Amino acid sequence: MPRYDIAIIGTGPGGVSAAITSKIRNKSILLIGSKSLSSKLVKAHAIHNYPGFPGVSGADLASALKAHLDSMEISITEDRIASIYAMGDYFALQGGKEIYESSTVILASGVVAGKPLPGEEKLLGRGVSYCATCDAPLYRGKSAAVIGYSKSEEAEARFLSEICSEVLYFPMYRDTPDLPESVQVIRDIVTSIDEKDGKRLVVTKENAYPADGVFVLRESISPGQLVPGLELVDGNFIKVDRTMCTSIPGCFACGDVVGQPFQYIKAAGEGNIAALSAVSYLDKK
Amino acid sequence: MPRYDIAIIGTGPGGVSAAITSKIRNKSILLIGSKSLSSKLVKAHAIHNYPGFPGVSGADLASALKAHLDSMEISITEDRIASIYAMGDYFALQGGKEIYESSTVILASGVVAGKPLPGEEKLLGRGVSYCATCDAPLYRGKSAAVIGYSKSEEAEARFLSEICSEVLYFPMYRDTPDLPESVQVIRDIVTSIDEKDGKRLVVTKENAYPADGVFVLRESISPGQLVPGLELVDGNFIKVDRTMCTSIPGCFACGDVVGQPFQYIKAAGEGNIAALSAVSYLDKK
Repeated sequence: MPRYDIAIIGTGPGGVSAAITSKIRNKSILLIGSKSLSSKLVKAHAIHNYPGFPGVSGADLASALKAHLDSMEISITEDRIASIYAMGDYFALQGGKEIYESSTVILASGVVAGKPLPGEEKLLGRGVSYCATCDAPLYRGKSAAVIGYSKSEEAEARFLSEICSEVLYFPMYRDTPDLPESVQVIRDIVTSIDEKDGKRLVVTKENAYPADGVFVLRESISPGQLVPGLELVDGNFIKVDRTMCTSIPGCFACGDVVGQPFQYIKAAGEGNIAALSAVSYLDKK
Repeated sequence: MPRYDIAIIGTGPGGVSAAITSKIRNKSILLIGSKSLSSKLVKAHAIHNYPGFPGVSGADLASALKAHLDSMEISITEDRIASIYAMGDYFALQGGKEIYESSTVILASGVVAGKPLPGEEKLLGRGVSYCATCDAPLYRGKSAAVIGYSKSEEAEARFLSEICSEVLYFPMYRDTPDLPESVQVIRDIVTSIDEKDGKRLVVTKENAYPADGVFVLRESISPGQLVPGLELVDGNFIKVDRTMCTSIPGCFACGDVVGQPFQYIKAAGEGNIAALSAVSYLDKK
């Protein structure tokens, strides 16, 4: 397995900036995220304070960032990282498709929309999962419930429907899901996750639905769940110092995931600092 | 006298970014620096890690930043700030042309090239000055020595030659100075500034030159001299926290002046944070 110098999680302006500076400093990098870059960025109507791009649309800024990556031959690996473990000398990143290894990690995974559901964190790893691709085999021939926070999660529900005996899908958005008939779509407000009689229970405002496994699928997962042991501040942000070092040596962070202000240019600036700190860390090793 | 909400010192990427975000937040701003933006930026051969502008020349990035300022009707006041005093409720900024008032200040004045000359700081205000426009009247009919660190300082020497009885000019750069005949250009390495028999003494490798006043003219002055009482780190950088607050309430800083890494995108990101911190400070007042 190749061991990268720097793994960068996230393809918003923070992750892109970190990737560019890391590449300039001749490090081998793994940039993980969406090939079409951060969906939050792409959907932005107009951005007025990214200096050099007056009034640019999110889509146009994303195109400019993508062109910058392309010009430096930086590719994006489309995967979703479920967990990152500090192994001492390196980090193991568990993706949906495979496990990656890297000497350092830069977290640029953005801000998590919304709080965890009551019961979600308690049951994580005990019937609750954030990654269908990773954990679907555990529920072969069993029942699964999917709580999907965006339309792109429907692909995971479709995949589960090929493996599980029953799939319930709880869309947490307005669009009509486009799913196979075998998937039962339930339009109700999910209020918590519980367990009963050896099964997980998706509790809604109107009812409660038992399932063997519950998949909670958001665009990003909370940083404390992504990297066990990471020190947080203000609830859900990664604690960093001015050099973007986190509480775990070799692990850096930048952008919305380290807290306000949630601004594209701030994220890009921090990505640069995080990359240079990672380079300095590698050079000292 | 108008009192601005936010005075921004410096027109590199940090100052420009701070100005853009301050303006978006509907604050009255005073942006002070060169209309052609930071000369360090303009002279940069190629910049590879300002995301969105692959391999851009410094001149082209400066043009893009200037166009951004123009599109938002942000003007630049060409002046050199010699000192900034915290007056309690506001700041007084002593420029070469006039005195300005502002409720908050963002320092984005860049990194100072080189260390102060031996004797320079001791004699500052006692015959040594950083601003010919400010202090020339003190030396009417007397002798002045100018230690000029860039060609643009020749204008100050020319101005002094109209007022003083004698002007010595010590160019600290290679280009041939273009000065009136009355200005005596001395090509020697300045090693220190001293005083003797009531006069200042410019000490060089080969000789020592007496003068009533000595003007040390650099593109930027050290932050500790710019804002008396400001807490510094690592010698000559302004101490800031993650929100770009300095040790003086209402005074913020960003870019090279707060320390490494000296990177354009880092400065732009910090300018954004500094502006939002200034806005938050103003809104709480």
